[in-house]
Amino acid sequence: MTMNEIIDAAFTRHRDALLADYFELLRFPSVSSDPARLGDCARCAAWLKRYLSRLGFSVEIVLAGDQPLLIAERAGATRPPTVLFYGHYDVQPADPLELWKTPPFEPTLIDDRVYARGAQDNKGQFFAFLAGVGALIEAGVPLPPLRILLDSQEESGSRALHAALPDLRRRLAAHVLLVGDTGMHTSGRLAITAGLRGLSHLTVRLSGPDHDLHSGTHGGVAPNPAMALARLIATLHDDDGRVAVPGFYDRLIPPTEEERRQANRLPFDPEAYQRETGTQPTGGERAYNPIERGCFRPTIEVNGIQAGHTGPGTKTIIPAGAVAKLSMRLVPGQSPEGVIRLVSEHLKRHTPPGLTLEIGEAQANGPGFRLPLDSPLVRLASGVLEQMAGEPPVFLWEGASVPIVSALQEQTGAAPLLVGFGLGEDRIHAPNESFSLTQFQLMMRFGGLFLAELAARDA
Amino acid sequence: MTMNEIIDAAFTRHRDALLADYFELLRFPSVSSDPARLGDCARCAAWLKRYLSRLGFSVEIVLAGDQPLLIAERAGATRPPTVLFYGHYDVQPADPLELWKTPPFEPTLIDDRVYARGAQDNKGQFFAFLAGVGALIEAGVPLPPLRILLDSQEESGSRALHAALPDLRRRLAAHVLLVGDTGMHTSGRLAITAGLRGLSHLTVRLSGPDHDLHSGTHGGVAPNPAMALARLIATLHDDDGRVAVPGFYDRLIPPTEEERRQANRLPFDPEAYQRETGTQPTGGERAYNPIERGCFRPTIEVNGIQAGHTGPGTKTIIPAGAVAKLSMRLVPGQSPEGVIRLVSEHLKRHTPPGLTLEIGEAQANGPGFRLPLDSPLVRLASGVLEQMAGEPPVFLWEGASVPIVSALQEQTGAAPLLVGFGLGEDRIHAPNESFSLTQFQLMMRFGGLFLAELAARDA
Repeated sequence: MTMNEIIDAAFTRHRDALLADYFELLRFPSVSSDPARLGDCARCAAWLKRYLSRLGFSVEIVLAGDQPLLIAERAGATRPPTVLFYGHYDVQPADPLELWKTPPFEPTLIDDRVYARGAQDNKGQFFAFLAGVGALIEAGVPLPPLRILLDSQEESGSRALHAALPDLRRRLAAHVLLVGDTGMHTSGRLAITAGLRGLSHLTVRLSGPDHDLHSGTHGGVAPNPAMALARLIATLHDDDGRVAVPGFYDRLIPPTEEERRQANRLPFDPEAYQRETGTQPTGGERAYNPIERGCFRPTIEVNGIQAGHTGPGTKTIIPAGAVAKLSMRLVPGQSPEGVIRLVSEHLKRHTPPGLTLEIGEAQANGPGFRLPLDSPLVRLASGVLEQMAGEPPVFLWEGASVPIVSALQEQTGAAPLLVGFGLGEDRIHAPNESFSLTQFQLMMRFGGLFLAELAARDA
Repeated sequence: MTMNEIIDAAFTRHRDALLADYFELLRFPSVSSDPARLGDCARCAAWLKRYLSRLGFSVEIVLAGDQPLLIAERAGATRPPTVLFYGHYDVQPADPLELWKTPPFEPTLIDDRVYARGAQDNKGQFFAFLAGVGALIEAGVPLPPLRILLDSQEESGSRALHAALPDLRRRLAAHVLLVGDTGMHTSGRLAITAGLRGLSHLTVRLSGPDHDLHSGTHGGVAPNPAMALARLIATLHDDDGRVAVPGFYDRLIPPTEEERRQANRLPFDPEAYQRETGTQPTGGERAYNPIERGCFRPTIEVNGIQAGHTGPGTKTIIPAGAVAKLSMRLVPGQSPEGVIRLVSEHLKRHTPPGLTLEIGEAQANGPGFRLPLDSPLVRLASGVLEQMAGEPPVFLWEGASVPIVSALQEQTGAAPLLVGFGLGEDRIHAPNESFSLTQFQLMMRFGGLFLAELAARDA
């Protein structure tokens, strides 16, 4: 049997048990942004500890502040390179609940797809990787030394892990940092993610009157925080979609010609984009094509805005205040802290008289980064993916962020490698998130093949 | 005893009973914009029917559609002029509930003030007027023929009454249309409201993606409805606060020199404004002073805006849609329907590609109007107010709207007169609405004196 066949046979043989465990994992509502869910996160960690122990790992739940991080280790049959696999068992909030067709924390298999919050991001992807590890162990295939780090807070900035990293650096030391939190190309071609954007965010509050005012008595007299916030947000971009915050682009490192060529190798398919999102790729800077906008250009987006009354009926008020949540996606060269400062200063400068601006919950999650395309590690992973698909993988520079990757790279010295099997139709972060068993099997296969190859190469 | 003394003695003698009845009236959560409260409105109407019957009125609850309007009539001791008093027993929604210091529908007397939703607007003002009527009846003072119309839907556009007016015009026919839904000057000087602004409103929905998108994967690629709605709102005004919708000011009738002089007679007190509202009068058009902006200039205000996630924690999404509620205050010459058309066309013109605009819940509540300052009716009311205060009243052109007034004037032929005793500190439409017993007594006294004077003048 080839290695491929060994892994596929393991999936077929253990399908029911694998799905039962996967579903158990998905039932924990481990929403990290909601402090009320911390107990659910802890229970999820305890479940994972038992699961990994049964696979032969020595496992510890490390409390970083109040956050239960999970660190597992398994001595390899071979010498280094040591692999550190990073995943996260926390998930995004499930709201708006009314848009879910199946309960978000009761996984449901419909045709080939498992529907649940976290079905893909990231429980599905890391659990499929563990299934690949399990298949090798069962078949007695040599593995390299393997460390596993499962974060409890990736969806809300990995603050505890960031803070604990200096203390954990020895225990997490590795040569390769494998992250399975990314996707394939929209065409379904397998892919290596050669870069991620960074992330900063902040909350803007504008307050004016000390209570909601009657919009008749006070309309045209009192300043309107809802309207002023709208105008303030409008100052963030020019009419061509370019960020209008002074200094925002100053330190940005543009992509190399090779990176740009690779990114544009597969054409952008506007019809596929319309099918996947329900809209056209009309956001961002008009000066760049949609691929380059998503890969190599930073953004400021409004994630939410709220003021006054938007329920049924009318309430003719000037709201006392207005709030917006902004996030910035960053590219190499931009400082997450620096961008928060620039945007905050810009907002302050444009706040009209009579209103008070408050910047809160500012959080610099991490910088963007790009991998060198010609490293031996990237070539090895390319070979594995080519073996799986019969054609070389494509390189993606994802617009999304896994901010902890840069920090782990810096602290552990490991070279990052990002391979995942997500697709747009998985609707991560949105209602009705799902992951197909086909994608699950791809991740399982890649995990097994990559580890086996690494061990064989060293032997 | 003078008429003044008769009325004040009645208040003193019946204080406990009056307050008990007033509190009972305030306990009905008669929120007209919430269909779930229709039963409470009907119960409130039934209570008022009993109350007015006891005062000697023949009362009928007229169902207009599903709306319980209350029409009461009492033959006068004198010949016409017949007075039609208009009030409304519906109230604004009470949310945000968490900002109320006392329960909104459990009236609480603290020092001289009654706190409750509707304490002033309009239950407090019309109930005080009825107390004045009761005092005259008890004292055997002749009254003119009096009709009372209590609306169930003023806070949400008086749609049912508007529709029923042609059928009710004979039953509501009168010479004088007295409306007690306005206020005094901020200085506490008694006032006649010589004009009101009109009102139109609409709801704007922008939709883009068919589900919330990951703001990393799609940031800079997909259009962001929250950001686009902010930019769309920003196109409604120029940097000087002037409405930038083409044609908006085209048919506007400016005030006469005398109206402008009267409006500016008492200076605008920015410190009093700051105390009352917690902010400075920095809204509206820079080209006009705060008094003229509120009295004679139309506005577009955002009453509410909502998109995406603004709860605790972060949710890095491009929201699928965004919604805003807009209202326009109108001055004479502007058509409520025409303004909705102009604003809708402007918004459509500025909607960026990839997003869909939907204008919903558009409602033309009524035009603005101004009273002739030299009519016999205005002179009579001025005399009564001068008798009460020892100085002539001031004229106010209120920014607020009682859209039904124009329609009632048109259908019944009655000449409107607007005298009320509201103050900014009453915080109508906001949490902790209140009405002082001092204001209550002023309204009671004015009601009694005005009716007695009208009857005596005719005799």
